Amino acid sequence: MTSRIQQLRSALIWLALIIPSAMLIGSICAGFLMSLHYVTDARFASPWFIYLLPLGGLLVGLLYHHFGGKSDEGNNLIMDQIHAPGGGVPTRMAPLVFLGTIITHLFGGSAGREGTAVQIGGSIASTLCRRLRLDPDSVKVLLMCGIAAGFGAVFGTPIAGAIFALEVLMIGRIRYESLLPCLIAAITADWTCRLWGAHHTHYAISYLTSIDPPSAFFHLELGIFLKVILAAILFGLAGTLFAKLTHGIGHVFKSTIKYPPLRPFIGGFIVIGLFHLVGTPDYLGLGVWSNNPDAVTISSLLSSPEIHHWSWFWKLLFTAITLGAGFKGGEVTPLFFIGAALGNVLAWVLNAPPSLFAAIGFVAIFAGATNTPIACTIMGIELFGATHGIYLAIACLIAYYASGHSGIYMSQRIAIPKF
Amino acid sequence: MTSRIQQLRSALIWLALIIPSAMLIGSICAGFLMSLHYVTDARFASPWFIYLLPLGGLLVGLLYHHFGGKSDEGNNLIMDQIHAPGGGVPTRMAPLVFLGTIITHLFGGSAGREGTAVQIGGSIASTLCRRLRLDPDSVKVLLMCGIAAGFGAVFGTPIAGAIFALEVLMIGRIRYESLLPCLIAAITADWTCRLWGAHHTHYAISYLTSIDPPSAFFHLELGIFLKVILAAILFGLAGTLFAKLTHGIGHVFKSTIKYPPLRPFIGGFIVIGLFHLVGTPDYLGLGVWSNNPDAVTISSLLSSPEIHHWSWFWKLLFTAITLGAGFKGGEVTPLFFIGAALGNVLAWVLNAPPSLFAAIGFVAIFAGATNTPIACTIMGIELFGATHGIYLAIACLIAYYASGHSGIYMSQRIAIPKF
Repeated sequence: MTSRIQQLRSALIWLALIIPSAMLIGSICAGFLMSLHYVTDARFASPWFIYLLPLGGLLVGLLYHHFGGKSDEGNNLIMDQIHAPGGGVPTRMAPLVFLGTIITHLFGGSAGREGTAVQIGGSIASTLCRRLRLDPDSVKVLLMCGIAAGFGAVFGTPIAGAIFALEVLMIGRIRYESLLPCLIAAITADWTCRLWGAHHTHYAISYLTSIDPPSAFFHLELGIFLKVILAAILFGLAGTLFAKLTHGIGHVFKSTIKYPPLRPFIGGFIVIGLFHLVGTPDYLGLGVWSNNPDAVTISSLLSSPEIHHWSWFWKLLFTAITLGAGFKGGEVTPLFFIGAALGNVLAWVLNAPPSLFAAIGFVAIFAGATNTPIACTIMGIELFGATHGIYLAIACLIAYYASGHSGIYMSQRIAIPKF
Repeated sequence: MTSRIQQLRSALIWLALIIPSAMLIGSICAGFLMSLHYVTDARFASPWFIYLLPLGGLLVGLLYHHFGGKSDEGNNLIMDQIHAPGGGVPTRMAPLVFLGTIITHLFGGSAGREGTAVQIGGSIASTLCRRLRLDPDSVKVLLMCGIAAGFGAVFGTPIAGAIFALEVLMIGRIRYESLLPCLIAAITADWTCRLWGAHHTHYAISYLTSIDPPSAFFHLELGIFLKVILAAILFGLAGTLFAKLTHGIGHVFKSTIKYPPLRPFIGGFIVIGLFHLVGTPDYLGLGVWSNNPDAVTISSLLSSPEIHHWSWFWKLLFTAITLGAGFKGGEVTPLFFIGAALGNVLAWVLNAPPSLFAAIGFVAIFAGATNTPIACTIMGIELFGATHGIYLAIACLIAYYASGHSGIYMSQRIAIPKF
């Protein structure tokens, strides 16, 4: 009985730690999502902002160079601190990555938001751990809660957020110790974020939206299933290509430009050049929505059957240069775009429904690039409903295998090799 | 390049092993589901069949006593053979458990079907391994595929089936090696089963069926959320109670009745006595549907707001005696009933929507009794759609913690203690 009381006491202490931190993380994520919306609309209203991208890059670079400390290591630093708790994640990482991402998006850098949210979550959780002088085991759990909270809130997918925090650390294994704290953190943060009125894009697949209830939770056609498997191999390879290209470009920038703030400055000019080369602003910024109804966006790829042959390639290049040069933001939303656009063109090649393949590509490329197949399957179901669950699950898993052992997070460890 | 070719070759060999076996398992499961439907309808048409239950029990007992060998160890034998491949699972387990379950249901024993499907899957997979003299590592993977195929086909929930096969072996950890083979096996078996026209009950929650699309994939109210957490603790405890009572009654039968075939014979009389005590046939058989529209069934609990105060307790008792005495069938469908009925009465106590709490109890008690929270969350989403995903996830996880380290499978090992 005493041990039951101790367990209850320990559970209450954990709740008292997790719930307020998750509410804080959710609130900051709400502010972040709203700011992102605001600066993206500002850029749509004043398209010439793109010409300030090099200056924006210089500003981000100077901020990180003079005030960043270890903040520049981003998500990898958080993962390292979970694997081997040490100096922790600096508090300043949260405001810096918030500001850096907003600047990147205001001037049209092609980047995402999950990295930002995860870093905000990790930085707040780590700060709390330092203040309370928690032991290393508790630090691990709380940092994972920070990841789950940030991820769950920024995408509005708390179950996926909790599983992601468990799955992203190690390839090939999940340990359950932190599952409940992570789920509570993700639900709390997501909820807080919604209470603030933060906007999550509602994604809808136009394919099979109005099927009968009896089959609504299960739908499978052999032809489409086999096409999904073929496409999933390419989604996985595209995930690897994205990771390698981003790291490779980052390496080139680091080895050729010694003064760090200059790297995003130069990177900004390259993005401007690319923008003039392709002649469309569709690959700038987040890519989720646009003020131009004819633009290629994640939403348009999911709803329209129109085919865009090379959108996936351009978005991949724009993003690899933006992030490789040192701009801030996440990799995941661009990955969604690249996957959806690749799904769109593969649907054309394979004679399959473009909106369905866009949705499958959206999550499968992410599963390949981050090695998190279960989180991505659940995310697909949280975003698109359960109707296409089987396609989503098999695609995420095949992409996971096809992408090999590399990924966008250098600090991910291999617990069990894929093959 | 050579290693890529070797990988491809190995993948093709695996597919050649898994797909035909899964199709066979799916076909047998289809036959099993149809037979189950047939005998259940026969019992509804002739309610006096219940008085033959002791004789049915004797028949099942004699079959297993004279021809069973190690078959009586059921699911635990399969799990042991995965942990430490040895003599394998006997081929006869498949026909014996098929027949034993059909007899149990024809005469109104309170039992399920997942154990049967899993044992059919495991037995076929093990037979294949023996014929092909596979190495122990391959045996493990193929046996897990058998579990996934049986579970996925019998419930029509392949993603949950694949995760279940991974999750059920060890408490607190998932390893990914077998995830892809298991998913392929589960999808193939489920699909084959559907192609045969096997019927899966479509469960629908009457609460919030027609909410707007924008919130269709996410719905959360604080009051309901807190009530779900309270209820989930009781679902977890009920899962433990079920496991302990079934094992305890089994122990009493074994220690007091030395000749095994007599145990279900005596058990049959006890079930008849209970039937007369409660005065309703609602707790006999599977409990999914009934020919009487006023009966308590899993379907009625999910769709009707009528409260049944003690249904959960009676179903628990009927099932613990039926299975403890040595009748055949699974534990899971009765657990669904018990959980749904407990959810129904807890909704009344807590002033919450009965259909929603029935659905949550349905999966949460199963998560508690089998220690498989992720599979149960996914199963809930596969069965009920994504709308209530958050409630399902938190309930499964809380029930998992509340149930402690015991469960219905004695051969489950503890990889990482829950607390």
